[in-house]
Amino acid sequence: MTQAELALDTSAWMGRAQQRLEAFLHAHLPDRDVPAGLGEVMRYAVLDGGKRLRPLLALAAWEAAGGQPWPDDDVPLWWVAGAVELIHAYSLVHDDLPCMDNDVLRRGKPTVHVRFGQAPALLAGDALQALAFEWLVAPAWAQRAPRQAVALARELALAAGCHGMAGGQAIDLAAVGQRLNQAALEEMHRRKTGALLLASVRMGALAAGADAVTLQALDVYGRALGLAFQVMDDVLDSTADTATLGKTAGKDAAAGKPTFVSLLGVAGARGYADGLLGQALQALQALRADTTRLADLARWVVQRHH
Amino acid sequence: MTQAELALDTSAWMGRAQQRLEAFLHAHLPDRDVPAGLGEVMRYAVLDGGKRLRPLLALAAWEAAGGQPWPDDDVPLWWVAGAVELIHAYSLVHDDLPCMDNDVLRRGKPTVHVRFGQAPALLAGDALQALAFEWLVAPAWAQRAPRQAVALARELALAAGCHGMAGGQAIDLAAVGQRLNQAALEEMHRRKTGALLLASVRMGALAAGADAVTLQALDVYGRALGLAFQVMDDVLDSTADTATLGKTAGKDAAAGKPTFVSLLGVAGARGYADGLLGQALQALQALRADTTRLADLARWVVQRHH
Repeated sequence: MTQAELALDTSAWMGRAQQRLEAFLHAHLPDRDVPAGLGEVMRYAVLDGGKRLRPLLALAAWEAAGGQPWPDDDVPLWWVAGAVELIHAYSLVHDDLPCMDNDVLRRGKPTVHVRFGQAPALLAGDALQALAFEWLVAPAWAQRAPRQAVALARELALAAGCHGMAGGQAIDLAAVGQRLNQAALEEMHRRKTGALLLASVRMGALAAGADAVTLQALDVYGRALGLAFQVMDDVLDSTADTATLGKTAGKDAAAGKPTFVSLLGVAGARGYADGLLGQALQALQALRADTTRLADLARWVVQRHH
Repeated sequence: MTQAELALDTSAWMGRAQQRLEAFLHAHLPDRDVPAGLGEVMRYAVLDGGKRLRPLLALAAWEAAGGQPWPDDDVPLWWVAGAVELIHAYSLVHDDLPCMDNDVLRRGKPTVHVRFGQAPALLAGDALQALAFEWLVAPAWAQRAPRQAVALARELALAAGCHGMAGGQAIDLAAVGQRLNQAALEEMHRRKTGALLLASVRMGALAAGADAVTLQALDVYGRALGLAFQVMDDVLDSTADTATLGKTAGKDAAAGKPTFVSLLGVAGARGYADGLLGQALQALQALRADTTRLADLARWVVQRHH
């Protein structure tokens, strides 16, 4: 499913959200005021790239939790959407370094270290992580609503750190050439990509003041969606080409990394993702608010072509 | 001046603070609950090492701002002291990587990437940065005092990020082989090491609820101390040997990096540090509380032998 095949208004909503986020990032990322060109490296790593799935999830969860659509910059939403994207962007920059995945192409462009060198890439990633936390505790709304800012920063720290994303990447490194069973593979992905995807959903909802019942349903949605995303990533990695993906295709299999396709086959993996989509959609039915956007994003994740 | 040459009680205070911090770090750093050995790498990077100057500054500023000595773990102080040390430790791990300073010895031990490999070192550094923020927003006290937690996390994010430490490192990278004048050299160090040293002082004081007048005096103290620290680092780097320093001596000069010694000579640099010490001590006189520890730490920074 492409964006155009979704309900027309969700497709338009996605485009508008991506544009709004891009404008926010343009306005708030540092630039020439940062020394020695570091701002330029940070902007290259973040701007003009990617599907912005994590910010879209935050926005959709914000709306599902009663947040007013298209808020201005003086409420948490865009800072939250930006912060999860900064963490994602920094992880890609570090992941692509020669000592990690050693990749040269990302989002259809040369990776950051190919363009600027390894040391600037390392530093830009480090600075992007610090900036993500800055965006949750430094803006004016965070001074007015410190309890909310603390809750949001806590979610992000736990999702990004050693029990979340960084821990998942450590498992991934250790798993090269290993035979993981499906449970171990899912555990790796639950941390490596799932934790930040789930945090994006939770943080969008928390930004809108979601209650515990809403968060509980969104947890089920977010976990199923996070896993489905990774299953489909493996499917696409084994079936699409590099030009379509905007990143090097077939790398995981070539590196001897376990994937859902190597465990289940392409058809089996697709079927598994469809089942997870069903779980995600069912969880949303517990909510009284309008969950069209969250539901459509889950469909898009499972039915996307790249 | 060694610790033994300080007023005996400050020397004992330093030893006791270092021990207390070590116990805190031992108790709160992740370990086997973190996947794929990442906890072990993080512990290696942080434990049993260094002078713990940043935590000592936080503790001394806490006391100077009216904080009760030797608080338990249910107030901000040790989390703050730990968080600034985590940021410092992560920056050393990344700094030592081959694409940065390519150093093999730190605190008298093999550097993290020499011991564990580059990818684990990169990930451990990333995870330590996330953990630093977690320690400021996740503990029970942060839920009870969210306004304080937000203020502390904001200080840390600004000190660590592109306008602070990471920005200073970017200047440092760009400065190899350049002739910087003294103003440019100071600007680099103000960010690279000064920002986190100043933040350690400010955060210790903020943790104790310091008022604006106290913070203002501590800003002057912290800036002078931060610069004096770097001037003395250059002096020691040019006069001490590797065994004494616990890290490779003479590297900056060998790498063609500008230093205060290359600009001012050894005697000139020592004299400059003495002047900065005077500024730091004078700033403390504006405070009514007991500033003995802060004063002695400043003396120790300028008169240390390693």
